[in-house]
Amino acid sequence: MGMHEYFKSLSDLEKIYRCPGKFKFEEHSVAAHSFKVTKIAQFLGTVEEYNGQEVDWKALYEKALNHDYSEIFIGDIKTPVKYADPDLRERLANVEESMTKHFIEEEIPEEFQAIYHDRLKEGKDETLEGKILSVADKVDLLYESFGEIQKGNPEDLFTQIYQESLSTILNFKELASVQYFLAEILPDLLSGEFTNQTALERISQRILKEHDIEQTFAMDS
Amino acid sequence: MGMHEYFKSLSDLEKIYRCPGKFKFEEHSVAAHSFKVTKIAQFLGTVEEYNGQEVDWKALYEKALNHDYSEIFIGDIKTPVKYADPDLRERLANVEESMTKHFIEEEIPEEFQAIYHDRLKEGKDETLEGKILSVADKVDLLYESFGEIQKGNPEDLFTQIYQESLSTILNFKELASVQYFLAEILPDLLSGEFTNQTALERISQRILKEHDIEQTFAMDS
Amino acid sequence: MGMHEYFKSLSDLEKIYRCPGKFKFEEHSVAAHSFKVTKIAQFLGTVEEYNGQEVDWKALYEKALNHDYSEIFIGDIKTPVKYADPDLRERLANVEESMTKHFIEEEIPEEFQAIYHDRLKEGKDETLEGKILSVADKVDLLYESFGEIQKGNPEDLFTQIYQESLSTILNFKELASVQYFLAEILPDLLSGEFTNQTALERISQRILKEHDIEQTFAMDS
Amino acid sequence: MGMHEYFKSLSDLEKIYRCPGKFKFEEHSVAAHSFKVTKIAQFLGTVEEYNGQEVDWKALYEKALNHDYSEIFIGDIKTPVKYADPDLRERLANVEESMTKHFIEEEIPEEFQAIYHDRLKEGKDETLEGKILSVADKVDLLYESFGEIQKGNPEDLFTQIYQESLSTILNFKELASVQYFLAEILPDLLSGEFTNQTALERISQRILKEHDIEQTFAMDS
Amino acid sequence: MGMHEYFKSLSDLEKIYRCPGKFKFEEHSVAAHSFKVTKIAQFLGTVEEYNGQEVDWKALYEKALNHDYSEIFIGDIKTPVKYADPDLRERLANVEESMTKHFIEEEIPEEFQAIYHDRLKEGKDETLEGKILSVADKVDLLYESFGEIQKGNPEDLFTQIYQESLSTILNFKELASVQYFLAEILPDLLSGEFTNQTALERISQRILKEHDIEQTFAMDS
Amino acid sequence: MGMHEYFKSLSDLEKIYRCPGKFKFEEHSVAAHSFKVTKIAQFLGTVEEYNGQEVDWKALYEKALNHDYSEIFIGDIKTPVKYADPDLRERLANVEESMTKHFIEEEIPEEFQAIYHDRLKEGKDETLEGKILSVADKVDLLYESFGEIQKGNPEDLFTQIYQESLSTILNFKELASVQYFLAEILPDLLSGEFTNQTALERISQRILKEHDIEQTFAMDS
Repeated sequence: MGMHEYFKSLSDLEKIYRCPGKFKFEEHSVAAHSFKVTKIAQFLGTVEEYNGQEVDWKALYEKALNHDYSEIFIGDIKTPVKYADPDLRERLANVEESMTKHFIEEEIPEEFQAIYHDRLKEGKDETLEGKILSVADKVDLLYESFGEIQKGNPEDLFTQIYQESLSTILNFKELASVQYFLAEILPDLLSGEFTNQTALERISQRILKEHDIEQTFAMDS
Repeated sequence: MGMHEYFKSLSDLEKIYRCPGKFKFEEHSVAAHSFKVTKIAQFLGTVEEYNGQEVDWKALYEKALNHDYSEIFIGDIKTPVKYADPDLRERLANVEESMTKHFIEEEIPEEFQAIYHDRLKEGKDETLEGKILSVADKVDLLYESFGEIQKGNPEDLFTQIYQESLSTILNFKELASVQYFLAEILPDLLSGEFTNQTALERISQRILKEHDIEQTFAMDS
Repeated sequence: MGMHEYFKSLSDLEKIYRCPGKFKFEEHSVAAHSFKVTKIAQFLGTVEEYNGQEVDWKALYEKALNHDYSEIFIGDIKTPVKYADPDLRERLANVEESMTKHFIEEEIPEEFQAIYHDRLKEGKDETLEGKILSVADKVDLLYESFGEIQKGNPEDLFTQIYQESLSTILNFKELASVQYFLAEILPDLLSGEFTNQTALERISQRILKEHDIEQTFAMDS
Repeated sequence: MGMHEYFKSLSDLEKIYRCPGKFKFEEHSVAAHSFKVTKIAQFLGTVEEYNGQEVDWKALYEKALNHDYSEIFIGDIKTPVKYADPDLRERLANVEESMTKHFIEEEIPEEFQAIYHDRLKEGKDETLEGKILSVADKVDLLYESFGEIQKGNPEDLFTQIYQESLSTILNFKELASVQYFLAEILPDLLSGEFTNQTALERISQRILKEHDIEQTFAMDS
Repeated sequence: MGMHEYFKSLSDLEKIYRCPGKFKFEEHSVAAHSFKVTKIAQFLGTVEEYNGQEVDWKALYEKALNHDYSEIFIGDIKTPVKYADPDLRERLANVEESMTKHFIEEEIPEEFQAIYHDRLKEGKDETLEGKILSVADKVDLLYESFGEIQKGNPEDLFTQIYQESLSTILNFKELASVQYFLAEILPDLLSGEFTNQTALERISQRILKEHDIEQTFAMDS
Repeated sequence: MGMHEYFKSLSDLEKIYRCPGKFKFEEHSVAAHSFKVTKIAQFLGTVEEYNGQEVDWKALYEKALNHDYSEIFIGDIKTPVKYADPDLRERLANVEESMTKHFIEEEIPEEFQAIYHDRLKEGKDETLEGKILSVADKVDLLYESFGEIQKGNPEDLFTQIYQESLSTILNFKELASVQYFLAEILPDLLSGEFTNQTALERISQRILKEHDIEQTFAMDS
């Protein structure tokens, strides 16, 4: 009980691996994922600011850093489970939320409970920072799935994750940072030589088109 | 779709590790656990038969082999989560059950669906075979937790799991196979020299006493 | 000494990896392999029964579950060692058998020794259950080697294992369960997109032809 | 070249393990460490604010998040190398700094270079945020070394790291957050039962005394 | 065919782990073991030379480097298998030898076959270099087993290996290098603080006494 | 203090992995690499001798065995760091050398210090043995990078390492052993079927041409 339990739980996040039960060439812990998402959110926020938006940095860092903390309770089970319908997913999310609430009341000293209830709640809201978190989370997932596809992982699942990530990112296409990502980063990602390179480029083009975005990848020319 | 999906899913069970997010000296996959539980159930059934009981071997093997198959959907999250109440656990169990049902309808050829609905349902019922499964499952869990305690794992969790496993086994103390386990196997388990040996022996004695069982461990004399 | 030694040895099977000394993308323990073989045998038996055969389930489960137990003594060294002739292989098998016998006499309580001598003897005999075990063992090996080929493992060894597995399965082509495997499962296995897909399909066709089996794979059309 | 290189490099930090070449029960990547340090800094900042200090959260998060980024160049080689004198250490630090500078000029787009020169420079300065970083970095190192000692790691190195970490933390004993750590967290850390518990308590007492701090650990009473 | 096969096989030795099927805190590959044995033999040879013996360095290095090469065929299965009698062991050794012979004839170019038949034959003969190899092999095994005991490995096996190693070393107690090891190295090994330290010291004293060696360990005083 | 520290440090080399921070399908420890380099040097020396050269075997084995020992101090950080110029590399080499010197003075008994100063100094000098070491070191690196390319590693780094290794080997093209390698071993390496086979063959041809070497690979015909 107390903050020691909380500090100890951080290390548990090093031992929870994303997308369990599937063959992967590289494993990613929830701790490492949270780090990368925060670093990516930092860059996306920088682009927003460069384009004249005002960024609430404190809020952005809090959201990014804590967005998967509740996975210490039931692990990473939200990655596309083929056999779960939206209702099942929501029930799982509720279970997770109840446990987080319970944890705070048991372990966090009273004077800090309100702060942590706020910090550990779902961060993907309608604020600019909530949107940047949504994008950053999917950019890292896109890199993770890309890493598997690029190495020749035969599981179709990773192509699905790649598509789903890109689609979600495109839901925020009005953001300057998303436009920067599409124009400057995605083409570099896709321009190397690797197994399935053409297939992935085609998929990306199609998804971009569905979102009415014109993008010619560097290597097409 | 089809049995190929089912065969492939067996390999996923090799990649789901029990009790995720906790430091362990040894990892145990759900596939390996299922193997050990079936082998242990085989021995317990043998003892029952030796003591005059009739064992439905087909039922026993089916129950043991399949008892954790549904973990391919949401992994192993039923190990004592400190912050989950019975209601939460039940909701998780329901989610798992729904996914199993969905999976069978999608992947198993129609002519075998009834058989697999039966095979993949909860096996720990009131039959002798259901009871043996309950015991075998906990004997393996007891060995797993013992393996951690014996190597000096400082997580208190494993002592809790040891206790809970032994308690559950003792709920079936009327079984000849449980009596054999208590008289012939548990003392050997506890008789080696290892860190916390005395503490574990004391805990075991206390739990046995709570279940009105007189057992003097070999090394006490 | 006693069943505790036997229970402990089950965990050793979790630490013996198949086909040691060769690069693999995925490792498979003997424990996990035994689990998968038993599950596959369960399905094959179901197909036999569906086709009017009588299956001795107790015998089938015993054979499948225990068929590699003796590897606790000298590990998995029977996978095609290029430099061993049949005589060497037989000598190794004899060594293993002697150790199993020795183990039973030392560790298994007298009242159960006969049962375990029977359980741990070679199970691949001329009974229906012995044949199903032979097939199930090779189906899992075929999936293991396929998993490597599909991920781009450059070791030629895995293509050899794939071929050898399929050939052995075809030695039992009179079984309904083998026919089911060839007609319903193998085509799905080969129909995905992966490195060397065409090569593997060609190899499979050739082996089928050698066994006088006409099979057109789904994707050919 | 471009931000894609930078994003990719984040994943390299998942593959650099701290304190290489020494036996450890648990490995910690630089990515995971950075995550934990940022979370710890978040809590320490919260305590400072609760005690009336003004915290520049943007600065604090930037410092914590980026403090070990430059390890992508020469890895984690600053953990106490017994055979390096201060001069050697400084030369290594210079090498690292030169490479970071070189990296930014090559990979980061010009419009963001100034920002990243600032973000990736040494963050442990004389500001409140710089001090919190120094403390948070050592709190995580103290937990890491404690985790090894507690599990019975025979390498003396981890006791040295524990001592060095605690000493450095105490250099900031005027901070409210350090006082909170000493009064509320350290006693919980030391109060469990584990190998060398008494020895570690004694070492901690001695170091506290050297810094003129009176602290009676919970379990002494 | 050809030296490429031989070069490739070196990498297989990186994937064969010593003492398979037993829980270990640290794994050691045959490649790493061969390296350490050669380095230890180098030192032991240096001590011999310092004491006036003439060392055939070419022979010593060849013996040490190649002494476990034949494990590419059937792996490391000679570590004390409890259930194997001397006859079984000898049969296994013969199998290994036959395969080595077969390998050389198939893969090594004719002009070098004689050299490699010589290099890959059993090196533990009656020459000074053969004796140094016997000692160096056991010194590394003693360090490996010591590493497990010191970390609290509960498997009794490692104490047996420690004893067997020390006994074998003492069979060569007339060597100056063995005397140096006993007087200058073993006491340092045993002088640290670790679980079972006293037990191990006592065992070592007893074995030394059985070989009529008087040795007082540093920490006794 | 004493040789015990030195013996212990050998095991640290088992825990230092080459080329840290990059995705690899296979990890290689410095200990295993040193073993392989020594075995390769043994063969190259054999070819030299067969071609009439006199080989100082003692010197060759010492050089090969010890050439990376100093990596126990700052690990393997010399693999092409893109952002380091030659000056930085030299400064790192100096740091390493200073630590080695310091280590010998602290740990090696005085009577053996001169020998170990000699053994642990840079071995790649102008002698035949120094040249063989340079070649053997790169042959193993070439195999390591080839192993990654062949399995489809998308990191461009490994193609660079392959090229750099082959170029360095060709700097010694006057050696009979290098000519043997080019004529008899490299073609076998490149003749298998694998991802990027053609690309790698083309690269190899180009590098050979740059060094004025005519070599037609087996499979070209």
